[in-house]
Amino acid sequence: MLIIMGANTHENANLQVMNMLEQAGITGYPVNSGKRRLICLGQNLPEQLHENLLELSTVEKIMPIKTPYKLASREYRPQNSRVVVGNRVSVGDGNFVVMAGPCTIESEEQLFSTAAAVKKAGAHILRGGAFKPRTSPYSFQGMGIEGLRLLRQAGNHFDLPVITEVMETAYVEDVAFYSDIIQIGARNMQNFPLLREVGRTGKAVMLKRGPSATLEEWLMAAEYVMATGNEQVILCERGIKSFDPATRNCLDLGGVVAVQEKTHLPIIIDPSHATGKRSLVPPLALAAAAAGTAGIMLECHPKPEVALCDGPQSLTFDQLYRLLQTVRQVVQALNIEEAAEFEELKVGA
Amino acid sequence: MLIIMGANTHENANLQVMNMLEQAGITGYPVNSGKRRLICLGQNLPEQLHENLLELSTVEKIMPIKTPYKLASREYRPQNSRVVVGNRVSVGDGNFVVMAGPCTIESEEQLFSTAAAVKKAGAHILRGGAFKPRTSPYSFQGMGIEGLRLLRQAGNHFDLPVITEVMETAYVEDVAFYSDIIQIGARNMQNFPLLREVGRTGKAVMLKRGPSATLEEWLMAAEYVMATGNEQVILCERGIKSFDPATRNCLDLGGVVAVQEKTHLPIIIDPSHATGKRSLVPPLALAAAAAGTAGIMLECHPKPEVALCDGPQSLTFDQLYRLLQTVRQVVQALNIEEAAEFEELKVGA
Amino acid sequence: MLIIMGANTHENANLQVMNMLEQAGITGYPVNSGKRRLICLGQNLPEQLHENLLELSTVEKIMPIKTPYKLASREYRPQNSRVVVGNRVSVGDGNFVVMAGPCTIESEEQLFSTAAAVKKAGAHILRGGAFKPRTSPYSFQGMGIEGLRLLRQAGNHFDLPVITEVMETAYVEDVAFYSDIIQIGARNMQNFPLLREVGRTGKAVMLKRGPSATLEEWLMAAEYVMATGNEQVILCERGIKSFDPATRNCLDLGGVVAVQEKTHLPIIIDPSHATGKRSLVPPLALAAAAAGTAGIMLECHPKPEVALCDGPQSLTFDQLYRLLQTVRQVVQALNIEEAAEFEELKVGA
Amino acid sequence: MLIIMGANTHENANLQVMNMLEQAGITGYPVNSGKRRLICLGQNLPEQLHENLLELSTVEKIMPIKTPYKLASREYRPQNSRVVVGNRVSVGDGNFVVMAGPCTIESEEQLFSTAAAVKKAGAHILRGGAFKPRTSPYSFQGMGIEGLRLLRQAGNHFDLPVITEVMETAYVEDVAFYSDIIQIGARNMQNFPLLREVGRTGKAVMLKRGPSATLEEWLMAAEYVMATGNEQVILCERGIKSFDPATRNCLDLGGVVAVQEKTHLPIIIDPSHATGKRSLVPPLALAAAAAGTAGIMLECHPKPEVALCDGPQSLTFDQLYRLLQTVRQVVQALNIEEAAEFEELKVGA
Repeated sequence: MLIIMGANTHENANLQVMNMLEQAGITGYPVNSGKRRLICLGQNLPEQLHENLLELSTVEKIMPIKTPYKLASREYRPQNSRVVVGNRVSVGDGNFVVMAGPCTIESEEQLFSTAAAVKKAGAHILRGGAFKPRTSPYSFQGMGIEGLRLLRQAGNHFDLPVITEVMETAYVEDVAFYSDIIQIGARNMQNFPLLREVGRTGKAVMLKRGPSATLEEWLMAAEYVMATGNEQVILCERGIKSFDPATRNCLDLGGVVAVQEKTHLPIIIDPSHATGKRSLVPPLALAAAAAGTAGIMLECHPKPEVALCDGPQSLTFDQLYRLLQTVRQVVQALNIEEAAEFEELKVGA
Repeated sequence: MLIIMGANTHENANLQVMNMLEQAGITGYPVNSGKRRLICLGQNLPEQLHENLLELSTVEKIMPIKTPYKLASREYRPQNSRVVVGNRVSVGDGNFVVMAGPCTIESEEQLFSTAAAVKKAGAHILRGGAFKPRTSPYSFQGMGIEGLRLLRQAGNHFDLPVITEVMETAYVEDVAFYSDIIQIGARNMQNFPLLREVGRTGKAVMLKRGPSATLEEWLMAAEYVMATGNEQVILCERGIKSFDPATRNCLDLGGVVAVQEKTHLPIIIDPSHATGKRSLVPPLALAAAAAGTAGIMLECHPKPEVALCDGPQSLTFDQLYRLLQTVRQVVQALNIEEAAEFEELKVGA
Repeated sequence: MLIIMGANTHENANLQVMNMLEQAGITGYPVNSGKRRLICLGQNLPEQLHENLLELSTVEKIMPIKTPYKLASREYRPQNSRVVVGNRVSVGDGNFVVMAGPCTIESEEQLFSTAAAVKKAGAHILRGGAFKPRTSPYSFQGMGIEGLRLLRQAGNHFDLPVITEVMETAYVEDVAFYSDIIQIGARNMQNFPLLREVGRTGKAVMLKRGPSATLEEWLMAAEYVMATGNEQVILCERGIKSFDPATRNCLDLGGVVAVQEKTHLPIIIDPSHATGKRSLVPPLALAAAAAGTAGIMLECHPKPEVALCDGPQSLTFDQLYRLLQTVRQVVQALNIEEAAEFEELKVGA
Repeated sequence: MLIIMGANTHENANLQVMNMLEQAGITGYPVNSGKRRLICLGQNLPEQLHENLLELSTVEKIMPIKTPYKLASREYRPQNSRVVVGNRVSVGDGNFVVMAGPCTIESEEQLFSTAAAVKKAGAHILRGGAFKPRTSPYSFQGMGIEGLRLLRQAGNHFDLPVITEVMETAYVEDVAFYSDIIQIGARNMQNFPLLREVGRTGKAVMLKRGPSATLEEWLMAAEYVMATGNEQVILCERGIKSFDPATRNCLDLGGVVAVQEKTHLPIIIDPSHATGKRSLVPPLALAAAAAGTAGIMLECHPKPEVALCDGPQSLTFDQLYRLLQTVRQVVQALNIEEAAEFEELKVGA
């Protein structure tokens, strides 16, 4: 249930509603999204209280949202959301956005040569890992703050907004300072204190789906970010676990299409992590474009064979360039046919 | 390991090799594909026997195939296979083939009106179930032989080859008589006696992947068909089981792309069964086209809301028509870009 | 919905009810269990027809069973079922039954020495495969009819009822002739024609759970057998597929305990196939006993290291002997504590 | 690879080895376990360097451990580990340890009455959640520090060591202060910064397996804790995700038995979270005892029907009391039979 306060209401109006809820033994969770004040409830309202609240001049309306996620639901916001990144790239408004870059930032030279290739190929956002969640404590864990600085410099130099992952609350401020989108990795999808902390920065957040998270759990994680008042959330599917060890992960494109009916948030596909294998990335990137998703995230490297992390799934610069050419051709083909009927859908809220 | 006999060798040559193997305690499995004789081995040959066999004038070569599937492997046949259906439709040679029709044949009227819509939409093959594997013994089990007859008539009337499922050896002869492609359903993927029986008909066989079959188990099932000498095998992915009850199945497009690197057999996608929901079919059908698969299989119905089986996943005729228009646009877009580099790959063996 | 006819009603009474259903456009599925006549419905009855049927003197009662499985449900039969095998062993009445023997019958010597060890260890039923469902067409497929004959002889010689698998309808009659329990393997759990055929033999049937079958799908498969009037069904859990390639299968003991609340059929555990590894069999066999299941099925071999199939999971005779000693100790410990409270539950229907 | 330094070597000895590694471009990870110094390597040593290191008087030996987890492996430590908790309870030395208590600490009264029941039933350790990882941001998140204080008081009052979960690094110090075992929840199994932080406290750590973590990923997570020099790690299996929505999780008892062959760390079973249903807890608790695991963790509540969290899986006090009686009977039965052969195994390292 969502209580929507009128535009420009004072904080005192919120307190009044919170008091009325508390007297009824109901916990309300106030959300101040900047644009307006909301109060989220994990349960239904008794009929009388419902009426009393509606009679307040400060309460605009009460939405009986059935799904456990409220702010992330299409019930709350029927039209697609648009997340504006670095003041110049829109995710979710019908463009097909490409994020690309190295898995891990290894050196200035590696990062800048990759950023140049990313720019030349026509990608829109530069990715690069400075803090790496590694399965083994005995593997390279990333360049840290120094990596963040390099990423920012490369982004500025090639006029590309940048995205990078944060793994712990202690570094959220740094990552927010140096990047345009803060990435939450798949392993941290249900790291609730971290979700809250990145939400509070007000920066755009890209939330990767956990490898065995249900679609509902994924949206509930997004709700943790949104409950801080930060609505700039992008979702990212990177493959789920299956019973078949022959493939690294199973890209759940059907799940993405299904969950898009439930949420207004834009969804990005990461075929690099989904497959773990270079030759499988292009067909799945094209599939993501044809399925109407909001974009893709790709890994590339000047010399994949010597990459410190995930080399086998990194594209060469030439492969990236050619893939994005074909991607654009597919996107254009869809637009010809579907422009009319999808028009309305593609305009952001 | 595969022993390839020379072209036009007499059966006696086979017997000689079989005897030599038997004396060494090795079981050989002779395959007569019509084109040539082969002997498949589940194990390696001792060095001396290997040499002795090669010295026979009737033995052309011995291929040390590493995968447990031999005839289905790219090691055996590097180029894509082409399965010709009903003397007029080629599956696997670079065309994007569309099979469409009702889940279940319910009546002459239902089938013929659907076949007309399938033809008009530009699909190439007509599907329809006469024998239905139902989870409950108390559900409609199909029209049986009468359904087969109707399917053949509809196919003839609209000049469309037809495909239908067989569930037991007792009906293999009938299904082979009335159809152009025999379908093995997902639940029967490892029904080995049935696989052998459909193989022996010499008809084209479409083998659906079991909902929890690994890619290797899938190819091993195809091998059972091919070991009868029947190389006319098409694979079909229809979604695998995942941990998320929110979607019916999980379309494993990444698995398809991965297994295509291992096998020369053409692979068809079934987004209707993969999703179980009409609105999710188009984006996944388009994704299948963009990913470079051999085709799709779609369910449609004149009135999905009253279908006896799987109505919620059946497209209306209008949706089918519009979807195939967009599919052709995507296929064309890919061809513009990739014609040159994929040329060689697309020519059948 | 189940219509229960009165004891000793004539077939004509059934026909009358079937006619009334047909006139209402409802398909009834008559079941003659020997003890009494039933008519199963996949849907609900209109109120008026429901009343009219109840007014018939031949109709005893109408049970509104909510689950899609009717005869297999506890709604239909609240108390545990008991399946009597070979006129001397009861499965499901509170004893802990042990089935043991070789995966595959390889020779008279191998089988008889194993049967002797099985008897000595105190197991109750002899198992042995004559028809083997092998993933590869190039693997040993079993001794066939000759294996069935040997199994019967060994059973007779050591006074042990025998169980063996059938894979196709063509051999159902033979397997029913030579064995006391007909096993349906995991890959054939949804081979519906085969389920019907083994049901019709009237012999006890052991139905293995498919490696990715839900609990409901498993009971629906049992329902196919029971819908033939054969109520002698035993279920067998042999491990399900999981995302972890480190273990062959995942023994779903929690699923067994959960499904036992839904069904009155006895459930056997197969730790040999669940683990695929000898050293893991004893702890899981003991766990099965402690969890209160109806019994276990174990593989053993005189020389596991040279077994033609599944050697790594076969116990030695000595291991079998010692394991069953401990199993009995655990069963006895449970009985001391739980005898009183479980007494009622353990008495068969 | 593990480099084991001699007992009582000075830190300078470590530095010498680290220098030699660095000059060879190899990263060493020094571990000071209190007892002795180790240096872990994620890769192999060149032959010459291997010899040179062995010649140092300060290096005792170099162990070529093949698994990616080093300190958690049985290669490193063949005998079972023993974790001593609160100076009086040993986990992993052959006793079957029972942890019990409420899912969530709700009030002093609720906690103390539960602790009394836990003590009376004969359990060894008191559990209770103060910080709760909830799927929804709109659910009760726990009493926090106040809950920790109550837990400590209840533990002291009833002479029970206590265990509670920590979710973020900011509270690690508090949780370490108030509890005897720090629990890492399933969702945080790969929260690597948190693992390091709890490791550094030197307190016993119980690491729950993630719901889709492979056995290897689980041990790698334990390795993160152990790499801080803290060897007091207990593993806890709480069910994994499966394809069947009929059960909440699938208790992977086979995986526990399999992983125990790879690791010396003690493993506890949590049947409450694995099943999510009260009636299924006792059979799985007994199965855990029979399978030879190190113990169980159970949830109980004075009035499960009004519990703030996970009521449906909480045992009543009476159920807890009777279950533990039966558990002891099973454990005793196993000891009679297996005492002799397992004697050696059960003595901690």
